[in-house]
Amino acid sequence: MQIAIIGGTGAIGGGLALRWGKDTDNEIIIGSRNPESAHEKADEYSQTLRKQDVKSRFVGMQNDKAASQGDVVVLAVPPYHVKDTMNTIRENLHDDSILVTPAVGMNRDDDGFHYNPPSQGSVTRMVADLGPDTIPVVGAFHNLPADRLASLDDRLNIDTLVVSDDEKAKAKVIELSDSIEGLRALDAGPLANASEVESITPLLINIAQANSGLHNLAVRFQ
Amino acid sequence: MQIAIIGGTGAIGGGLALRWGKDTDNEIIIGSRNPESAHEKADEYSQTLRKQDVKSRFVGMQNDKAASQGDVVVLAVPPYHVKDTMNTIRENLHDDSILVTPAVGMNRDDDGFHYNPPSQGSVTRMVADLGPDTIPVVGAFHNLPADRLASLDDRLNIDTLVVSDDEKAKAKVIELSDSIEGLRALDAGPLANASEVESITPLLINIAQANSGLHNLAVRFQ
Repeated sequence: MQIAIIGGTGAIGGGLALRWGKDTDNEIIIGSRNPESAHEKADEYSQTLRKQDVKSRFVGMQNDKAASQGDVVVLAVPPYHVKDTMNTIRENLHDDSILVTPAVGMNRDDDGFHYNPPSQGSVTRMVADLGPDTIPVVGAFHNLPADRLASLDDRLNIDTLVVSDDEKAKAKVIELSDSIEGLRALDAGPLANASEVESITPLLINIAQANSGLHNLAVRFQ
Repeated sequence: MQIAIIGGTGAIGGGLALRWGKDTDNEIIIGSRNPESAHEKADEYSQTLRKQDVKSRFVGMQNDKAASQGDVVVLAVPPYHVKDTMNTIRENLHDDSILVTPAVGMNRDDDGFHYNPPSQGSVTRMVADLGPDTIPVVGAFHNLPADRLASLDDRLNIDTLVVSDDEKAKAKVIELSDSIEGLRALDAGPLANASEVESITPLLINIAQANSGLHNLAVRFQ
């Protein structure tokens, strides 16, 4: 399978790329607005995995090209770039692809970070509204600590919550998430549940800031 | 210390009562609208702990009377009873007491359970608005599985998130939470963060319903 990570040069995209590179034999396409950055990062990730004696398959491409080749397309861009990025890649998605969105809208004031969803109710819903009707949208990877994904010795033991109105697409993303060692994917129901999932992210930052000894937090349901 | 649990005959109130009865030497006042129910439940909890060879101190009282005696007053009533209950107990709270609110507003449709906060933004904020200005309000115990609290052999290993604008009151409630074996209290910042904390509760129910083998879920930040 080909996984295209739009914004694959960023923290969460890079973390997912490294983990999929290590734990699966999928081809991973690193997308970026700048094709040169995409190539550089693909090389960098390959070198990182080579040090672990893992032969992986990363290629770098401009976002629109990356999107056209992904069976699963992960929209790993900040929330304020989601709309522009969707406009860029929208026509390039192929009919059998699945669009995955991990972005979360947040703002910050003196009290800490707060969930700040777009008018659609959640970024996940916004992506679904912006995408072609034929492409299933799955929300996943919202609450993951990018640093720990990139630290390949970190054993994780954490969960990711997956929402979608398309059961088949959701099952595929759950499988793809579970293929990362130490990451457990949990079905969190339909897309209507995305806002509760997304709103955990600011909480993780606030908890890490308020409690000594805790950082790069993730969540485990037990 | 005296802990008054308003609605202490209910599931979450009863679970907290049993745990504090087992793990601390605080006097625990079981409050109910009906004093007879309060007495009965206090007796029942005492018997449950006696079977574990624990001598505990439960007393049952009508809610308003219970509130007047609590150093910490836990408002363990459903969200739609919060306003009425606050009107009942408001004048009875003494100046040094701390008010703790675990209630969460939810609704349900075909997609599952959803977070449904009151117009104030969170039930925790609503309680703060309804209470006397002199009484600090702390949000805590929102995401706890009542059944597991009541199953005294369950080792928990779960977290509760604590929010308040009053640092001293928050520290006291964190200490009181930590006194329950297997329950870790985490500072989740000021009261403005209550909505993100409360919104985990519907998610726990949805996840338990959508994933086989998971039930009575709680959360652990790690």
